[in-house]
Amino acid sequence: MGNDLLERRARLLGPNVPIFYDRPVEIVRGQGAYLFDARGQRYLDAYNNVAHCGHSHPRIVKAICEQAGVLNTHTRYLHEGILDYAETLLGKVSFPGQLLMTCTGSEANDVALRMAQAVTGKRGFIATDNTYHGNTTAVAHLSTRRPPIGGWPDHIRRVPAPDSLAPLGGSLDAQPEAFAANVARAIDELEASGHGFAGFMLCPIFANEGMPGVAPGFLDPTVEVIRRAGGLILCDEVQPGFGRIGSNFWGHEWLGFTPDVVTMGKPMGNGHPVAGLVAAPQVMAAFREAFGYFNTFGGNPVSVAAAMEVLRVIEEEGLQENAAEVGAYLLDGLRELSHPLIADTRGLGLFLGIELARDGEPASAEAGRIVEAMRDRHVLMGRVGRAQHILKIRPPMVFSRADADELIGKLSDCFEELPA
Amino acid sequence: MGNDLLERRARLLGPNVPIFYDRPVEIVRGQGAYLFDARGQRYLDAYNNVAHCGHSHPRIVKAICEQAGVLNTHTRYLHEGILDYAETLLGKVSFPGQLLMTCTGSEANDVALRMAQAVTGKRGFIATDNTYHGNTTAVAHLSTRRPPIGGWPDHIRRVPAPDSLAPLGGSLDAQPEAFAANVARAIDELEASGHGFAGFMLCPIFANEGMPGVAPGFLDPTVEVIRRAGGLILCDEVQPGFGRIGSNFWGHEWLGFTPDVVTMGKPMGNGHPVAGLVAAPQVMAAFREAFGYFNTFGGNPVSVAAAMEVLRVIEEEGLQENAAEVGAYLLDGLRELSHPLIADTRGLGLFLGIELARDGEPASAEAGRIVEAMRDRHVLMGRVGRAQHILKIRPPMVFSRADADELIGKLSDCFEELPA
Repeated sequence: MGNDLLERRARLLGPNVPIFYDRPVEIVRGQGAYLFDARGQRYLDAYNNVAHCGHSHPRIVKAICEQAGVLNTHTRYLHEGILDYAETLLGKVSFPGQLLMTCTGSEANDVALRMAQAVTGKRGFIATDNTYHGNTTAVAHLSTRRPPIGGWPDHIRRVPAPDSLAPLGGSLDAQPEAFAANVARAIDELEASGHGFAGFMLCPIFANEGMPGVAPGFLDPTVEVIRRAGGLILCDEVQPGFGRIGSNFWGHEWLGFTPDVVTMGKPMGNGHPVAGLVAAPQVMAAFREAFGYFNTFGGNPVSVAAAMEVLRVIEEEGLQENAAEVGAYLLDGLRELSHPLIADTRGLGLFLGIELARDGEPASAEAGRIVEAMRDRHVLMGRVGRAQHILKIRPPMVFSRADADELIGKLSDCFEELPA
Repeated sequence: MGNDLLERRARLLGPNVPIFYDRPVEIVRGQGAYLFDARGQRYLDAYNNVAHCGHSHPRIVKAICEQAGVLNTHTRYLHEGILDYAETLLGKVSFPGQLLMTCTGSEANDVALRMAQAVTGKRGFIATDNTYHGNTTAVAHLSTRRPPIGGWPDHIRRVPAPDSLAPLGGSLDAQPEAFAANVARAIDELEASGHGFAGFMLCPIFANEGMPGVAPGFLDPTVEVIRRAGGLILCDEVQPGFGRIGSNFWGHEWLGFTPDVVTMGKPMGNGHPVAGLVAAPQVMAAFREAFGYFNTFGGNPVSVAAAMEVLRVIEEEGLQENAAEVGAYLLDGLRELSHPLIADTRGLGLFLGIELARDGEPASAEAGRIVEAMRDRHVLMGRVGRAQHILKIRPPMVFSRADADELIGKLSDCFEELPA
């Protein structure tokens, strides 16, 4: 059946459509932290952050159904839904902000870039050299996996991502200042090039970079450099946000800085296409006055019903607390795994990484082998990092201690089979 | 209550968030072609094409609920849903194509531009001087209502939109060749500038331009010019598509040409955030090989369940036929309206326009007055055209003869009150 589906997929969707695993899985049902294939086999989901509150969460499904049966239209009519949601969400952000809603994190990041342009009148941006912020033309310019169509543009400058195998500045202690110094250099280059410096877009926990050796205060010198240059800090919270890191609701809170714009996406509607951003009022005003932005589906009553129920479930089911507690338990267990290739095991709540290296060099192929072996044991996980050498564990927030035990046990088996 | 909501809206969402009407309406419920405000008052919806099959259509709501309760994940696992939908949708397109799914029409158009770049290796685009294709950075470059943030880019060239008050080339007969000649000139400019010519993005019925004096064959000379130059035709079917024009399922079929890419959005999921594009296989392959495009929410099982049910409802409820029949009835009735300012009344299925002019010049203020007066009579409609002087009627496809009678009657009253 898998082969039939692959053939149909290539015929109907074209070549090179991204897919997971050498032996792709056909998923037909989801519940909590579990996915089920067409043969009824259960997979433990240790990867999908979109199903933040768990797959097919009944309360969120109900919220979507009830609102879809009543009204689903756009925001050019008045509706209390988006306002109630904005009030609740903004109450969870550490600075006074305003909300703009979109359908995808890519759209939110695309708007955030224009906000920085509207505020500064400049067009140059900085991102790390190992990141991904989305798939629109403008946002793909920041992503580093593949050259964007049309080539690398001159108004984007990349700074070396923090790294734990080869820390910037030669040591983990020196890394924060070294990172900031590179940002300062990139700002100078952008100003010299005539583009000017509009802002820095980053994930505050450097999720795509593999969370390499960052800790609270890491960005303090960088924030100072950016503020001095008059640029904006555009904080992509698509991965760390909504309590995933356990200790805090947002990644930037944990790092300890205040961004100008916070963008959010994947977990926001538990799979319903809802995303958005929170911006400081003067930033929102600059954008709203420069450009008549309207998003047809953004902030519609069904989207906000889904998003509102996600916030309620996170709170009422204690999912942030669960991320902290199960995340810590899982991290402890993963740290007991022993294999010569394991260079570092780290985690923030329910976002964990195991970095594989040989002689200080990324062990990419072995990381790939572990992911495939885990898939064969019915545990779904992924990889990140500059060489895709870091195992990525980022399950739904309902992940339990028993799930953690299953993950650790099977991972232990896979490492045992892995040649040193 | 309206004022409270406006105050909360400004406080929570910021200034200048687009809204309809001098006296905005608070809509809380929708059913078929009707919307209801917080006081239970009924409004006839003659504007919203998103609720294509009618507001809160029970079959589409049911499809969303059922699938949301089972699984909602991304396309990097195999799933039959997107393949079944692709098969059905592609069967309704007049050329052999493949499907790529996104969440918004803006995202689809953003991808379409990159497809043309991937195929041609060039980056210059042409659009009309009175259009809108969406809100991403790249797509906003094509839109003409407001300068994009960062200013007008050099790689976009605009050609004068067809016009019924002042036809290109001096007469409606001469307009098709005159339009094509301007496109040829723009292509020459792009080639001379070094950008080269990648493609022309257009709505085949020139919806935002107010459907001015176009008829089958209108684009034939333009298509020839584009083909000769090696560019792609990117056909934005967000407004005409899915049977709205009655005679055909797509606008380009009615015009009688074959595009390279067809983009679609608003009506595709009846309000659920689903959009996408169909491209010729060699175009899809060029894009898919140049760029690893993945859209987290695009084509997820719930989105395709909604979209599939929309296709079924269009067919089983005969909505395209209804658009043809009620549209013709409505057009006849609107043509009997008599007022010195009515310069032209035209329509394609359930997409109709009434152009207001005084001495050959757009009567924008009066069009605005009619829209507000209709809102006060609880009929929702809008305006389009280079001077916003064309009344726009584009209701859900379940619009009935009785709805048409109500619209005509109230419009007649409004015109009676309008000073000549």
